[in-house]
Amino acid sequence: MKFATAKLHSRTFVGLVMDEKIMDLQKAEKKLFELETIPETLIECVSEGEKFVRHVEQLVEWSKKKNSEESGSYIYPLSDVDLLAPIPEPRKNVICIGKNYRDHAIEMGSEADIPEHIMVFTKAPTSVIGHMEGIDAHEGVTEALDYEGELAVVIGKTGKNIPKAEALDYVFGYTIINDVTARDLQKRHKQFFIGKSLDTTCPMGPFLVHKSMIEDAGDLRVETRVNGELRQSGSTEDMIFPIADMIETLSKGMTLEAGDIIATGTPSGVGKGFNPPKFLRKGDQVDITIEPIGTLSNPVK
Amino acid sequence: MKFATAKLHSRTFVGLVMDEKIMDLQKAEKKLFELETIPETLIECVSEGEKFVRHVEQLVEWSKKKNSEESGSYIYPLSDVDLLAPIPEPRKNVICIGKNYRDHAIEMGSEADIPEHIMVFTKAPTSVIGHMEGIDAHEGVTEALDYEGELAVVIGKTGKNIPKAEALDYVFGYTIINDVTARDLQKRHKQFFIGKSLDTTCPMGPFLVHKSMIEDAGDLRVETRVNGELRQSGSTEDMIFPIADMIETLSKGMTLEAGDIIATGTPSGVGKGFNPPKFLRKGDQVDITIEPIGTLSNPVK
Repeated sequence: MKFATAKLHSRTFVGLVMDEKIMDLQKAEKKLFELETIPETLIECVSEGEKFVRHVEQLVEWSKKKNSEESGSYIYPLSDVDLLAPIPEPRKNVICIGKNYRDHAIEMGSEADIPEHIMVFTKAPTSVIGHMEGIDAHEGVTEALDYEGELAVVIGKTGKNIPKAEALDYVFGYTIINDVTARDLQKRHKQFFIGKSLDTTCPMGPFLVHKSMIEDAGDLRVETRVNGELRQSGSTEDMIFPIADMIETLSKGMTLEAGDIIATGTPSGVGKGFNPPKFLRKGDQVDITIEPIGTLSNPVK
Repeated sequence: MKFATAKLHSRTFVGLVMDEKIMDLQKAEKKLFELETIPETLIECVSEGEKFVRHVEQLVEWSKKKNSEESGSYIYPLSDVDLLAPIPEPRKNVICIGKNYRDHAIEMGSEADIPEHIMVFTKAPTSVIGHMEGIDAHEGVTEALDYEGELAVVIGKTGKNIPKAEALDYVFGYTIINDVTARDLQKRHKQFFIGKSLDTTCPMGPFLVHKSMIEDAGDLRVETRVNGELRQSGSTEDMIFPIADMIETLSKGMTLEAGDIIATGTPSGVGKGFNPPKFLRKGDQVDITIEPIGTLSNPVK
């Protein structure tokens, strides 16, 4: 199951993506069951966890039994809607794992940069934008804006002190994040928050894919293209700290909540890693592909 | 004006603190004006900025004209209520300034630790607790739990690229934060988020004081006592980066929102600064005093 937060005319809704179509879940429920139990926002749906997923399965089943004329009132061509970030307004900062791929750690400095322990910083919720929205070049603020293609985990169940063996039970699903970074600010301010939190520097999407669609999140290819040129091509199996480790470490003494978003780190090939560096410029286009989630595309404006 | 988020029986309300009494603002408005415009939560009140403050002034004025018997239904003895954190559920992580006092930077290492540029990290919203609530000792997670008494700024007006000269117009008021830190985790994970975000490690309160009560937030005494022993005694005039500088730097390219909370850094005298270190233990009591805000007290449990 692939979920989206979408906008058609002035209505923002939680949608289920099926091939080239999208189902407005609230409208479908109203039409099919005369019920109004689906929450307004995807973060609230995620917080209901598997109960929400079972309910959507029922909706899909019933919808198939109905004639297709009726379904026109709640199923639209995907091309007709605008996609927002799956979770456009996170309830806290996006949690990010730093230098989680060996080759990326080295390109950021040297072998000495490979972390012995997981490194965690955050991005402000105000930095989140959706698929196809513009990344601000922030001229006058930074001269070293860089891309970082990343698999992101969305937590589906609140928990604390979660053992590694149970960690994946707490995952709802996966999306893509571009952890856009102002390298000069990241370096100048030592702690990463400022360099990671400029407005529009957290593109997220296009979809939130339920974990049932992904056999092994530790074996996905992450590819980033800038203006069509392949810059990053890594596999999540090269993470230094795999997803279950992150969840175990983060939840030691800290409650992880349903709706929390964890960006899992970026493979090598960021702009700073080239000599001379290839930073983002106005007019560039960044595409990050992780199947089966899809491609997250954003122009720099 | 001193605001609080308080609980009486099972009702949580936004209160105005007057000496040893507290006015339930929603109830007062209902009784005095038959209106229901005061929001449910203090963060929503703060987002209304000066409009909210003017409205509360009216309420106080009208309440004085009424006989005191009637006011008993919305004004209670302060000792009858439980205080929550003024903003118990921040909408994003608490923004924290690191090593913002010269002597504290030195006690954390050496002169080399004095930052040239502002250093910013965050604390998870799940770490927030109120006055008198217990700080978890987190035995088994950390062996080096430390206190940090800090003045915190609450933003009252959303803005971006705010010049220093206008920065204080964006402040709603001030509160106290204990930026409790697991020193071993802070060091082990390099980026500070993990060591700063354990549950219950962000005591906040007891009150949110409107800026009209504080002539100069750059000239306040910050005192921390552990079991009555004075450990920290600094002045906010010794901040390396004063409040207006923080707001200017943070808002460069990043939108600061009404309700955002900025902990401004701690003076010298933290547990780690002693030889041997004086870390927090179960049964300790931490009291942080900044007048005219008051004293934020929390036991370690």
